[in-house]
Amino acid sequence: MAGIHFFESDDPKLVVQKALRVNLSDLAAMAAEPLGYLLGLSLPPAPFDCETWLDAFACGLKINQQEYNWMLWGGDTVSTSGPVTISITAIGETDKGKSLSRSGAKVGDDIYVSGTLGDGAGGLMVLRNNLDSEKYSHLVSRYHLPEPRLKLGKCLSGLATSAMDISDGLMGDISHICENSAVGAKLFIKKIPISSSLSNFLETKQAYSHLVWSGGDDYELLFTVAQKERKIIADLSLELGIKLTNIGEITAGNEAVLLNDAGSKINTDKSGYCHF
Amino acid sequence: MAGIHFFESDDPKLVVQKALRVNLSDLAAMAAEPLGYLLGLSLPPAPFDCETWLDAFACGLKINQQEYNWMLWGGDTVSTSGPVTISITAIGETDKGKSLSRSGAKVGDDIYVSGTLGDGAGGLMVLRNNLDSEKYSHLVSRYHLPEPRLKLGKCLSGLATSAMDISDGLMGDISHICENSAVGAKLFIKKIPISSSLSNFLETKQAYSHLVWSGGDDYELLFTVAQKERKIIADLSLELGIKLTNIGEITAGNEAVLLNDAGSKINTDKSGYCHF
Repeated sequence: MAGIHFFESDDPKLVVQKALRVNLSDLAAMAAEPLGYLLGLSLPPAPFDCETWLDAFACGLKINQQEYNWMLWGGDTVSTSGPVTISITAIGETDKGKSLSRSGAKVGDDIYVSGTLGDGAGGLMVLRNNLDSEKYSHLVSRYHLPEPRLKLGKCLSGLATSAMDISDGLMGDISHICENSAVGAKLFIKKIPISSSLSNFLETKQAYSHLVWSGGDDYELLFTVAQKERKIIADLSLELGIKLTNIGEITAGNEAVLLNDAGSKINTDKSGYCHF
Repeated sequence: MAGIHFFESDDPKLVVQKALRVNLSDLAAMAAEPLGYLLGLSLPPAPFDCETWLDAFACGLKINQQEYNWMLWGGDTVSTSGPVTISITAIGETDKGKSLSRSGAKVGDDIYVSGTLGDGAGGLMVLRNNLDSEKYSHLVSRYHLPEPRLKLGKCLSGLATSAMDISDGLMGDISHICENSAVGAKLFIKKIPISSSLSNFLETKQAYSHLVWSGGDDYELLFTVAQKERKIIADLSLELGIKLTNIGEITAGNEAVLLNDAGSKINTDKSGYCHF
């Protein structure tokens, strides 16, 4: 939705690539192979320049389809008195019984995340506040083009006890796993992996440090694995060239808590991430 | 899209039932069995009364799911600065090679439609012009709750050479079959089946008589069948209790024409049906 999930002035070529990658990230979190997608597009009337917009949009579709080897199956286009809206339904497949879910986390399981967190949300802050987007190009790029962890998702099938992708912030999303698995979680803030770009950014913008655990737009995988599989996860990280970081542990109860260096609970009581 | 596909003041219970039935009609046209659907919902902020609206909406979902034995699989909800938008992706299945398509019509095939045409578009005119909606309740009801022809679609598998549902008006839609099948079509206006309700309505509103072939919102099946199958189609009509009317013939060439009683071409040159 223009004005909520992307800026109206954003390049449609990037906007649609992100929309598709966000959906691919959902498939990744279920260990699915992408097959095709359906697209519902709502476009405003003139003065909106539909033709130019669609040219760039179609170019983005093409780039994405070539990168991820899937295709547009169908959909619908309507005119709207509101903002541009892109609605995507992604279809993928897994072998029977091989998909990952949010409901299998067990007390004592390790909690992992892929990659680094907070980059996308940091990139959004750079754009929103007109900061030096060249200096922070890594963050801006992570905001525009998240990397769906499709290979990782597949490798986690049969290994992870639960998985999802982080789209609305680490703490909000781990609570979904907790709720679905009827468990709690204990996470350590100092273990959360952050990029050097985000680290540089936060040095001068400490007010944003909560983005690491509350910022959305990560599209990294959050998953739980039995402790005895640590060696396998370490090997997988090397094999795929993706950082996989143990950031905490599944606990009894039903509460997800984030602990600081002193072991005290950080107040993470923020209601729902707002994309901007 | 509120303001385009339905009135903002429409009962959400009816609006969502229609949205689902329109999708079921697409499944019917492919001879598919409905399995489940995905729902993308965009809702405006206050003063829009989200809670009341969603209560009625959920009630409509429930009624539809019980009627058609399918279910909501997932989806997304976002807020919007624009109108209420309901985006549905329907998933169904057919046995391999048993789905109907638009591309198999052959020269000489009979062209059929199910039910009666123009009722939904007539109902919309009644509502738009604040006419006596009690007197024309059949038309209004056909506008709000079209009947997806699921059983008929399945029976046409292996029998019809092409099929689609009529959503944008008979003439526009037959031209899709012509284009996909590389053929032409000759339709006779006097053969188009209309209901007694629409007939009464048109007696005083002759300016709307084009709705029969250009009005959308029919959601009847349009299909082609080899002439030798006429007896089977007649039997099927009796068996299902659905009127199936031969309204013309597939021709060589690539033009779809509508002929009047004198055999002259009617000018059907209207660009794209606008729901209102």
